[in-house]
Amino acid sequence: MKNKPKIQTNKRAIKRNEYFINTAEQLKPQLLQTTVRPDNLAVVSADRLAIHGWRAMAVSPAEELGGGDYGKGDQFILDFGTHLVGYVSMYIKPIGSPPDAPLRLRLTFGEMPVEMAEPFSEYNGWISSSWLQEETIYIDMMPGQVELPRRYSFRYLKFDILDTSPKYRVAFDEVTCRTVTSADSSRVKPLIHEDQMMCEIDKVSMKTLQNCMQDVFEDGPKRDRRLWLGDLRLQALSDYETFQNYDLVKRCLYLFAGLPDAKGQVAANLFTAPEYIADDTYFFDYSLLFVSTLYDYYFAANDRGTLSDLWPTAYRQIELALDRLDERDIVQDDDSWYSFIDWHEKLNKQASSQAILIYAMKQAVKLAEVLESGKRQCLNKRLQEISSAAIAHLWDKEKGFFVSGQEKQISWASQIWMGLAEVLPPAENRRLMQRLLSEKPAIGLTTPYMHHYLVEALILVGEKEKAISHIKGYWGEMMKDGADAFWEAYDPNDKAFSPYGSQLINSYCHAWSCTPAYFIRKYRL
Amino acid sequence: MKNKPKIQTNKRAIKRNEYFINTAEQLKPQLLQTTVRPDNLAVVSADRLAIHGWRAMAVSPAEELGGGDYGKGDQFILDFGTHLVGYVSMYIKPIGSPPDAPLRLRLTFGEMPVEMAEPFSEYNGWISSSWLQEETIYIDMMPGQVELPRRYSFRYLKFDILDTSPKYRVAFDEVTCRTVTSADSSRVKPLIHEDQMMCEIDKVSMKTLQNCMQDVFEDGPKRDRRLWLGDLRLQALSDYETFQNYDLVKRCLYLFAGLPDAKGQVAANLFTAPEYIADDTYFFDYSLLFVSTLYDYYFAANDRGTLSDLWPTAYRQIELALDRLDERDIVQDDDSWYSFIDWHEKLNKQASSQAILIYAMKQAVKLAEVLESGKRQCLNKRLQEISSAAIAHLWDKEKGFFVSGQEKQISWASQIWMGLAEVLPPAENRRLMQRLLSEKPAIGLTTPYMHHYLVEALILVGEKEKAISHIKGYWGEMMKDGADAFWEAYDPNDKAFSPYGSQLINSYCHAWSCTPAYFIRKYRL
Repeated sequence: MKNKPKIQTNKRAIKRNEYFINTAEQLKPQLLQTTVRPDNLAVVSADRLAIHGWRAMAVSPAEELGGGDYGKGDQFILDFGTHLVGYVSMYIKPIGSPPDAPLRLRLTFGEMPVEMAEPFSEYNGWISSSWLQEETIYIDMMPGQVELPRRYSFRYLKFDILDTSPKYRVAFDEVTCRTVTSADSSRVKPLIHEDQMMCEIDKVSMKTLQNCMQDVFEDGPKRDRRLWLGDLRLQALSDYETFQNYDLVKRCLYLFAGLPDAKGQVAANLFTAPEYIADDTYFFDYSLLFVSTLYDYYFAANDRGTLSDLWPTAYRQIELALDRLDERDIVQDDDSWYSFIDWHEKLNKQASSQAILIYAMKQAVKLAEVLESGKRQCLNKRLQEISSAAIAHLWDKEKGFFVSGQEKQISWASQIWMGLAEVLPPAENRRLMQRLLSEKPAIGLTTPYMHHYLVEALILVGEKEKAISHIKGYWGEMMKDGADAFWEAYDPNDKAFSPYGSQLINSYCHAWSCTPAYFIRKYRL
Repeated sequence: MKNKPKIQTNKRAIKRNEYFINTAEQLKPQLLQTTVRPDNLAVVSADRLAIHGWRAMAVSPAEELGGGDYGKGDQFILDFGTHLVGYVSMYIKPIGSPPDAPLRLRLTFGEMPVEMAEPFSEYNGWISSSWLQEETIYIDMMPGQVELPRRYSFRYLKFDILDTSPKYRVAFDEVTCRTVTSADSSRVKPLIHEDQMMCEIDKVSMKTLQNCMQDVFEDGPKRDRRLWLGDLRLQALSDYETFQNYDLVKRCLYLFAGLPDAKGQVAANLFTAPEYIADDTYFFDYSLLFVSTLYDYYFAANDRGTLSDLWPTAYRQIELALDRLDERDIVQDDDSWYSFIDWHEKLNKQASSQAILIYAMKQAVKLAEVLESGKRQCLNKRLQEISSAAIAHLWDKEKGFFVSGQEKQISWASQIWMGLAEVLPPAENRRLMQRLLSEKPAIGLTTPYMHHYLVEALILVGEKEKAISHIKGYWGEMMKDGADAFWEAYDPNDKAFSPYGSQLINSYCHAWSCTPAYFIRKYRL
């Protein structure tokens, strides 16, 4: 009983800014609610052509549920027809004698058919099994309304009647989901587009964003249900083109700025309950994306007050990133450091990180111009030095690619970020992206997050058609594989991919996948 | 999905008496609450000398719990030191990083060590597994207070930490139980008794009763948590000698009287939530015990108003029982009929039922006297006839025992109830009971309920010493086997006995076992 804690936390001292936190608190949104009923009773069967090997098929309209009754060992699946985030309730009636024992009921929530088919008890991924959405509940009083207190992210809902008693069975009425979101669909302008597939991709993007917009921008409503800076940046871009909830972006920026560490670095993610807490996780790239998120926000919302408030925080991220440069002005690559970039085990992150620093500094220069800040000169000077260093030390002229780390790794991510950072002159930059698409280096992309930056880079270098075809080939393919909302991880060449060792735990509505709507609408793709 | 109900209910039309129900509703008690903390952290180990083969042993004071922290796969058991009925809450703190995934926690509540040791998943008894007290809960927000909404009946509480995340562990503070009861201990007169064992038996009896006294008299707070007439009768007897909550007895009598079937028979048990409902279960003996319960109540509480209100209901039970007599005036024994008497598979219930009818009619005669009711003559006349019939057809003079059913079975139960019914003259009646104890027929007693009536019969025939020694040998032995409250079922010669095929599902605080306090106090044993 005298266990010593085995967990070592990397918790840093937090320098809380009460004014920023209060500002954020006042921007807390009211959630919009709708009541959704299931479409169908469904079965999930093995199908090797379907994603993860499982296909859901309707067997009868969900209205027929009320006519059935169920006893020990019975099971059925409800298909709500699309991805939902919300609170489930139902009315349970006993059939037969008055219930002389509680009802024991297991409810399993799934975003995907695989979650209905494969038992959670066999989950062996490396992140917590507690994310698997399952409840075993006891109902002591029937008939009666049951309101589940937790929020779920799901399309499918499996009922396992674990036990009633020999004297009664149960029937279910009015199984509903009260969905919640801070995204107001009435603010979205209709998309006029002759390509039906792009219209569909736009819709699924917006559904993804909408279901991640809660009282902050969450990364995924199933998992981790949390405000991550890298996700926020992409969500905000899509939000400006769709739901236009500028205040929610503002709220999140103030939250990050309100909880920096003692040196001023913003955390990679925040918890919002039971209070606002900065996670003890700091990413080189995510901290810099605070600058980008503020930059995007200012030019979308034209909110100079927020820019003035948060500029020092943004500038501080650059200062801290500059501290990581070696004497050559190259980001040091060692074990003391973490930059996210993408879920790729073998990816070396030095070149991408160097590029993100340059990218963020260019945005900082523009913000300094708006503010007429004296930091502008100094930023510009360092920008030149760092960009030159990137060319001098990371650019392999012969191969025509940027290299990263000790082993001079050539990856997609390095080229994409260097492309976005516009380290090369425009024509060369365009050729870099073309070369990337034709030569296809082995270290590829694993997440929609990184695919976003590929599309952004293609548009930047004027390759609109290639951007469109990549959107269709990646997000469109995900849709063909059954995405009601876009997924956290997807590799069209390895559809079984999970960064966590199990498809059960992947998030199938994930913020960083929501940007096709941004591309389609912003760039009129 | 088009299942036809497979459950056939024996539901009878109910003739609800609103005045009776309203009277009962107004007598609904306020529950008394206390907060109880665990005594020890405990382990449960195999021990073939212990009841069910398991023994709980303290390993350290429960205060040390707060100093420990727990991760995936950890387990500990809290021992609250005695049997409790109430609501559990605790404060859960994360240790390490902020919790980046919910805590998944299984809580297992046990009245007995066996419930801590044997997995509920292997339960294979014939009544519903949903009575096993277990919850798997997800805690999304920590640190924080967790209040479990359901009521539990337990002494031991096992924590299984199913998952946290690789980044945090958990610690538990202030695990408490808010107990509930409608029994007011301050009304109990201290027992002055030179026999320490009798004092202890009295205490455990009162604990049993107290924990079954909720907003009605429940049979068992773990299972079935319900108002049963046979249990009520014994609880009321003990209550008059201890907590003296006459109103709770009155409430229960009005409830039974308020929900008879169309013919006027009171049900064997009632549900009280979500509304007052008569179960579709009717026992010949339990309905007659309505008369006995009213009789006991009147003479304990001297409440003539209630007697006047409920007399017609009581009298009706006798009329309906008389309808079951054959042309010889003997209770018909066939498949259309059920009388509880005792949990004994082979027990024939004809003779006991005949005796209970006589017993109840004798009480009814006394109530008719109080009320100066004209029914008295008619009752007395039938009583003579039925008693004579019992002697003529059920008394085996040669063997000196009452026989029951086609096969002329000689059981303990038949002799006990005929003894209580005083069918034989006093001296013969006494010899009957002496013969029973010396000859020990094979069809014995399985429940404390039936043991109660044995003791009552011994006292009636003047065998006080034998009554005392039976109380010590039965309830005292149960106490030696670790009873904090007296059990639903106990056979000193077959300690593994369960009427349901599993020791896990037995109720270990059961109303019908609470009567030693009544005997000790009422008869100054």
